[in-house]
Amino acid sequence: MLHLYTDSSPNGFKATIALEELSLPYQLHHVRIDEGDHRKPEFLALNPYGRIPVLMDTETGVQLFESAAILLYLADKTGALLAPKGPTRWEAIKWLQFHASSLGPLLGQRVHFTLFADTPIPLAQERYQGLTEEAFKVLDQTLVDRPYLAGDDYSIADIAHFGWLHIARIIQFDFSHHRYLSEWFERVAARPAVRKGVTLPAPATGA
Amino acid sequence: MLHLYTDSSPNGFKATIALEELSLPYQLHHVRIDEGDHRKPEFLALNPYGRIPVLMDTETGVQLFESAAILLYLADKTGALLAPKGPTRWEAIKWLQFHASSLGPLLGQRVHFTLFADTPIPLAQERYQGLTEEAFKVLDQTLVDRPYLAGDDYSIADIAHFGWLHIARIIQFDFSHHRYLSEWFERVAARPAVRKGVTLPAPATGA
Ligand SMILES: N[C@@H](CCC(=O)N[C@@H](CS)C(=O)NCC(=O)O)C(=O)O
Ligand SMILES: N[C@@H](CCC(=O)N[C@@H](CS)C(=O)NCC(=O)O)C(=O)O
Repeated sequence: MLHLYTDSSPNGFKATIALEELSLPYQLHHVRIDEGDHRKPEFLALNPYGRIPVLMDTETGVQLFESAAILLYLADKTGALLAPKGPTRWEAIKWLQFHASSLGPLLGQRVHFTLFADTPIPLAQERYQGLTEEAFKVLDQTLVDRPYLAGDDYSIADIAHFGWLHIARIIQFDFSHHRYLSEWFERVAARPAVRKGVTLPAPATGA
Repeated sequence: MLHLYTDSSPNGFKATIALEELSLPYQLHHVRIDEGDHRKPEFLALNPYGRIPVLMDTETGVQLFESAAILLYLADKTGALLAPKGPTRWEAIKWLQFHASSLGPLLGQRVHFTLFADTPIPLAQERYQGLTEEAFKVLDQTLVDRPYLAGDDYSIADIAHFGWLHIARIIQFDFSHHRYLSEWFERVAARPAVRKGVTLPAPATGA
């Protein structure tokens, strides 16, 4: 059995969307960040860094945190959402990592300085606005001649980016001036598993 | 033939160390960030985001950026530095992603605000000092009862963390109060391929 520990949030949606796409049965455990559940000893035993999502697979004994690791695991477990080998596999992994190491963390910092910081720091706000805009442009250019990030097929690279961009749009980190990125967003948003994934666990964040 | 485009820097060392560990022949191309080589059209054709390292494998047609993607590719290409399957593989991938998405980007932001920002912003400096210290603590706890991050065997998860921590130490982002992390650092630093990797491409950054 798969157990997912998550909250209604950008990195969590990557896992719920993937599980819904794969039609895998799983048990959902709601870790309420607003109530400090992620700092409780039971949760720190699953991820000592205190961040969601966490996935446990009781069948294989694998226990993971980090959304990109979870996406890779689910794809390799099922043979879906990622080519088993060859250049297409690596194209998807490249864009997955671009999200995990570049765009995702920058969006996280932008959220902090724009929405959460007690003291507004304009220089820091501008820094992360500029860096995320640079990354949006790279995605937009990439999508000029392909429907999905790794090419013709939808993959975990799209899921990783969508999880965050869904929230970016809600909080008005605008990317609508990037035509190809916006079209890709609509294409992914139309998938039933994606629509369901962003509502889990309820109550959803503005979804 | 493998071609590595890189500079003497934290993310670059991950690739040079892995290639040296694997004794793979490769051609090294020095992309001088201080001379703006990473913003030239030739390099942007390899990585539109303008960051090193980039790896090209002319044998398979795979072309990658993002150091974590490069590490996964080299490990899977050779069957070394990462278990081919099972819980140990996923333990290594989990810690690789912890580096790629959590510690690595936070160290990058700490470097910016501590060493490069034109205007010092104490609040931002403290933020990234605190967050990297929290991540160092997680690594230290993990290494209490295992010599390497994924367990008994050295893996790409260690290489990813070492590439950055080598520079963290040079620029005095101190982690010497974390005993297990420091012992792990010395263990990894003693490897001949690691010692060579951090000198490439010459001239090395303080190495
Ligand atoms: N790199 C991690 C980031 C995880 C992360 O930051 N999760 C957020 C929710 S989206 C969280 O748990 N935040 C709680 C906190 O920062 O204390 C991943 O991709 O899973
Ligand atoms: N997430 C990327 C980060 C790559 C990165 O930021 N590389 C730095 C050197 S360590 C770079 O190219 N910096 C040039 C710049 O930021 O303009 C990776 O892991 O490869």
